[in-house]
Amino acid sequence: MAKLSERALIRLIREASAAAAPGLVQGIGDDCAVFGNSGEGRWLISTDTLVDGVHFDCHWHPPALLGRKSIAVNLSDIAAMGGCPRFVLLSLCLPPALDADWLQQWFSGVSAILAEYGCVLIGGDTVQSKELMISVTVIGEPGSGGILYRSGAIPGDIVYVSGTLGAAAAGLALFQKAKQEQIDLGLQLQWQVLLDSHLNPFPQVKLGQELASTGCVTAMQDISDGLATDLAHICQESGTGSILHLESLPSLPVLDAAAKFLGKEKLDLLLKGGEDYQLVFTVRPHREEELKVKMASFLDQQIFPVGIITEGQGVILEQKNGSRTDISFQGYEH
Amino acid sequence: MAKLSERALIRLIREASAAAAPGLVQGIGDDCAVFGNSGEGRWLISTDTLVDGVHFDCHWHPPALLGRKSIAVNLSDIAAMGGCPRFVLLSLCLPPALDADWLQQWFSGVSAILAEYGCVLIGGDTVQSKELMISVTVIGEPGSGGILYRSGAIPGDIVYVSGTLGAAAAGLALFQKAKQEQIDLGLQLQWQVLLDSHLNPFPQVKLGQELASTGCVTAMQDISDGLATDLAHICQESGTGSILHLESLPSLPVLDAAAKFLGKEKLDLLLKGGEDYQLVFTVRPHREEELKVKMASFLDQQIFPVGIITEGQGVILEQKNGSRTDISFQGYEH
Repeated sequence: MAKLSERALIRLIREASAAAAPGLVQGIGDDCAVFGNSGEGRWLISTDTLVDGVHFDCHWHPPALLGRKSIAVNLSDIAAMGGCPRFVLLSLCLPPALDADWLQQWFSGVSAILAEYGCVLIGGDTVQSKELMISVTVIGEPGSGGILYRSGAIPGDIVYVSGTLGAAAAGLALFQKAKQEQIDLGLQLQWQVLLDSHLNPFPQVKLGQELASTGCVTAMQDISDGLATDLAHICQESGTGSILHLESLPSLPVLDAAAKFLGKEKLDLLLKGGEDYQLVFTVRPHREEELKVKMASFLDQQIFPVGIITEGQGVILEQKNGSRTDISFQGYEH
Repeated sequence: MAKLSERALIRLIREASAAAAPGLVQGIGDDCAVFGNSGEGRWLISTDTLVDGVHFDCHWHPPALLGRKSIAVNLSDIAAMGGCPRFVLLSLCLPPALDADWLQQWFSGVSAILAEYGCVLIGGDTVQSKELMISVTVIGEPGSGGILYRSGAIPGDIVYVSGTLGAAAAGLALFQKAKQEQIDLGLQLQWQVLLDSHLNPFPQVKLGQELASTGCVTAMQDISDGLATDLAHICQESGTGSILHLESLPSLPVLDAAAKFLGKEKLDLLLKGGEDYQLVFTVRPHREEELKVKMASFLDQQIFPVGIITEGQGVILEQKNGSRTDISFQGYEH
């Protein structure tokens, strides 16, 4: 039997989907689709599915935190376009033996994060299945700064990320190692920040809206599959290339020790691990200072320049010694 | 481990979900949620998940027809409120060994039915899983007759269905029997209409819009879980009861032979089988004649009075001899 890769299937779907239709502002090819009839407001919509054993593991993921994360990864898609989340639909595939307490705790996490973001559950369905699967659809509105797409970057723009990279990937790898080798991670407090990054990611909804409001940002997306893949999406949609500077990639100090402990390349955690749910965005060089001033007055959050948009295509990683490697789309594929 | 029934979970979710929020017109409790900011148009949205081995069986379901059905069951939710489908998002959980040809044929069915209904694919994701699972979100707009809810029925209204019942349930049972007993159904042409009803259901999108336009209909929903459950939803949301007249339930002539062949009660197929994807709706008695005249001028489709809305609650089945049974929510639970 021939197999179809995820990328091939997405290409098939993309070719079959309409680039233009009445009321359609943005189809497949961004964090959210955007629709709305002319003369009326616009809506953002995105859907994501989490599968037990693929996207999470019930062995180490406390149900309430998994409930939060189930919603957070979708809110992140709204954040990536500068939007404001409004409504959520849930589709749950539940194994018959699933524990009622587990489900109630999971749902308490869902309810808590929805309330924090002023978002409302408006529909869904539940079906029986062998595997636990959680499918979430989120609907949002543009924030006051309007919508930021992946397609607005031009050569010369500076590439920024909104926080440190690799922590969630390291956290996941730590849980996997601990399970395999039966280590108790609870005794190693240094890893806690990494474990938390994996268990309970923070969607950058407020930051996304603020960045859109500055008027300095040209393209944006969230880092869900690793910067190597997510910046490649911006390049693909903008018709540009990019160079990342290895020395500029921000990470937590503990990531070096974690990479060593895990026997992994720190660089792979930074660029290919995924699930950081930070934002990657591009800024016109002459507006960098303005952005920094505006950011300082808005929120107490550091942003990090990590590279530059170029002619050409793809994502090139440049080391201090000048050597270059193409890392386009080398991020995590679930 | 304690288990949570689907109904208990839905109750939990419903209690936690907002009945009212800015921009929310209808939350959980109807075929679709309805949202829209004041002074702007409204949008309908619904999500449904199909699981291999639960909602369909790849052994007998040709992939292109399954593609059609994956979308049709969602279009039916839009039809149930008199809406017009516009946009679709797909979330696919695919086993790694899934055949590429199968997937391409499945997708050709999806594309075909979307084109027939002027509906556009605007987003989605694909993930790997052990089980094949298909989650579809559909977004629609109100038709020219506005939105029909489940909640508008009042005592005295006549209950109608838009076509024969039980054919899809019989078709499914025939496939199951054929698989179990290794019978070749291809040789028994009499069953074809039942098999087709299961394989390729027809969403009543046009009829739903026409019924809403008449102004004669007070409540509506689609028959996906069997009339015993779906009419119970109308009663629950309207705060009424209902009586169904056994003798009035329409079915195809071949259903008697199929029930006998299957060793099943015909009544169970009619009321509890589900997946008919006809519409059940209620009409003020003094507007029945007007509705019939309007229907005749609109479309060549018969509609069938099957009962009456009453005070009280639930769905009562009344036999010719006057004996009554409560059948509320006795439809199919996947």
